[in-house]
Amino acid sequence: MEIEKRFSKMSKRMKSSIIRELLRDATNTSIISFGGGAPDPETFDREALAKLSQGVLLDEYQISLQYGATEGDPLLKDELIKILEERHGIKGLKHGNLLITVGSQQALDLMGRVFLDEDSYVMVSHPIYLGAASAFRAYGPKFITIDLEDDGLNIDQVEKALKELDSKGEIQKLKFIYTVPNFHNPAGVTMSLEKRKALVELARKYDVLILEDDPYGELRYEGERLPDIYYLANGENVILLNTMSKVMSPGIRIGMIAGDEKIVAKAALAKQGADLCTPTFTQRLVARYLQEGTIFNRIKSAIEIYRKKKNIMLDALQKYVNVEGAKWTKPEGGLFIWVTLPEKYDTMELFEEAKKVGVAYIPGSAFYVDDRVSSSFRLSFCLPPEDQIEEGIKRIGKLL
Amino acid sequence: MEIEKRFSKMSKRMKSSIIRELLRDATNTSIISFGGGAPDPETFDREALAKLSQGVLLDEYQISLQYGATEGDPLLKDELIKILEERHGIKGLKHGNLLITVGSQQALDLMGRVFLDEDSYVMVSHPIYLGAASAFRAYGPKFITIDLEDDGLNIDQVEKALKELDSKGEIQKLKFIYTVPNFHNPAGVTMSLEKRKALVELARKYDVLILEDDPYGELRYEGERLPDIYYLANGENVILLNTMSKVMSPGIRIGMIAGDEKIVAKAALAKQGADLCTPTFTQRLVARYLQEGTIFNRIKSAIEIYRKKKNIMLDALQKYVNVEGAKWTKPEGGLFIWVTLPEKYDTMELFEEAKKVGVAYIPGSAFYVDDRVSSSFRLSFCLPPEDQIEEGIKRIGKLL
Repeated sequence: MEIEKRFSKMSKRMKSSIIRELLRDATNTSIISFGGGAPDPETFDREALAKLSQGVLLDEYQISLQYGATEGDPLLKDELIKILEERHGIKGLKHGNLLITVGSQQALDLMGRVFLDEDSYVMVSHPIYLGAASAFRAYGPKFITIDLEDDGLNIDQVEKALKELDSKGEIQKLKFIYTVPNFHNPAGVTMSLEKRKALVELARKYDVLILEDDPYGELRYEGERLPDIYYLANGENVILLNTMSKVMSPGIRIGMIAGDEKIVAKAALAKQGADLCTPTFTQRLVARYLQEGTIFNRIKSAIEIYRKKKNIMLDALQKYVNVEGAKWTKPEGGLFIWVTLPEKYDTMELFEEAKKVGVAYIPGSAFYVDDRVSSSFRLSFCLPPEDQIEEGIKRIGKLL
Repeated sequence: MEIEKRFSKMSKRMKSSIIRELLRDATNTSIISFGGGAPDPETFDREALAKLSQGVLLDEYQISLQYGATEGDPLLKDELIKILEERHGIKGLKHGNLLITVGSQQALDLMGRVFLDEDSYVMVSHPIYLGAASAFRAYGPKFITIDLEDDGLNIDQVEKALKELDSKGEIQKLKFIYTVPNFHNPAGVTMSLEKRKALVELARKYDVLILEDDPYGELRYEGERLPDIYYLANGENVILLNTMSKVMSPGIRIGMIAGDEKIVAKAALAKQGADLCTPTFTQRLVARYLQEGTIFNRIKSAIEIYRKKKNIMLDALQKYVNVEGAKWTKPEGGLFIWVTLPEKYDTMELFEEAKKVGVAYIPGSAFYVDDRVSSSFRLSFCLPPEDQIEEGIKRIGKLL
């Protein structure tokens, strides 16, 4: 059978993650990898989870090993609602405002499924988080790309694009503005309070949705916490995505969608067909873990680990990357530093050379929805041990 | 915001599971429910899982709490390949032939995603497993429905439909023939060896795919095990779906797709955008559990429990349902009995009455992709305690 001919249009739009492809040869070797966004496993609270899993399996097996509601474990929702209230100041959320997902990747996919048609628009930052691009792309929408600045989205561009869509009578085809306001992946930048407020204003004025994705918000190493866009907008026209992946464990695959209950209900309906429910075992385990109330202490230790690693990397960049015109972001949190070289560099080409000297990063072109050449690249400082961070940057510096 | 206007075409095709809606009021009350297909929690091997989860979390946390490959945990694949070889006689499967999914619901969805366009056809049994119908329906294909007989799909109808598509030049638009050969949900019937062979022949002749879904195959209470369609076809033109849901735990959400490596690779690509990976913790836990080699003893005990419950239900039907022309399937395995009343009955109408007398089933119309009235209904005997099975059927009998 010529199977390729049978595949769907949707499947033809799917692209394999370039990160996956690039890192395929870069694992299990002597290569120092700044590639993936995988957390440091020493931040995982394995002892607590091992202890709690006993009770969850032995005493709660009728729930933790049985089918559960598509919407998610009510106990887990209680805990997440508490965190959203206490840490984010978001009040009044009910169970109907929350959907538990298999990581925030599923949340992104469900948003695509619920909103996007081939004639839809999505507004995204450029560079964009790759996982979001691939989730949305499958549904075939047109991307409207907005430059990312040191303090977040270029709001003038956002306004101009909205005005243009509105004047063409196509504003309703813009399904959402997707943004990672805190410690952007890949760029490491954080949206300023002013821009958050301006974005909320624009969303209100043009009656469009903001899809706020906040996987790294709790991992702040310097500076003051900024309010969520969802908070600033009082939840109006905003959908908030979050995940336990970077603050607890990505392997446990617990994410969430918070927002208007009609949207959440539609996403739950989509999830019903997609996988029936998130594993009840991991949901209950995370619920019991959050009930312990120790997660924010644990996150504090993770912050210590990551802050140190980040500073080592920034110092090493300063020390070893002596290229006229090179610059890099100095993130106040999150997992990524975004390095931009002078335009003559093609970091995709350079990637092969880098691998030869035993170091891997993600070429910038991976984070654009067009096929541009990029002189930027993303460095993740979370996984490699401290001594390797310095050594790896030294190798990059030498190469350049 | 008028949110309904913003939703996608795809989301408009989604229908909430009628089972979910019907059973919403039928839980946490005094109603005896024969509704859902949830296994008896006493079949869950909670002690073994609790014990194994310690090692998986404490010693393997760098894998079990970290991101994993989209394709699935290699250790789990090894175990599944072993089972497919030893229990199903399927030889030569490699890791590239297998994708681990979040339950077989995700496997169904991925098959929809990879194959179905709005102008595609899928051939299904009537009645059809609801979860498959809802997974496929989201992608908008046309359903070709084939009557289900006591020994499986009406093969003459299959052949006629294939011939017709072929003569219209549309055979390539038929993306697959979906079938649950063992202990069909909802009908409880099993496809005969002759029909399996005939189906393989037809698939070969017309060069179409068979999507074989086998969640219940290990739960055989009487009669002789029949070979998988996948086995009979030597894997050609067949994709095999399976799951741990009915033989281990549905809450652990581990399913699989086995087949041609090009199809599996495409499904993995689709999964990458859908949820990145199945939880690594539950995957590794299931892998370690399968390595113990005790699962088939455990299934034997489950078979004892379910056989007894099934016989109690069949006896009760015999005793209490005295309706001229009523008949029901006598399944050799699985979880469901399909009762068909004379045509004057509308089991959807009757459902409200049944709830009033404290018993719930699933009306037959839920299992058809058209909007027909049905005089059939599905009974699940797996969850209620033995004494409630007799009492529940007594109530149904009285009602009729």
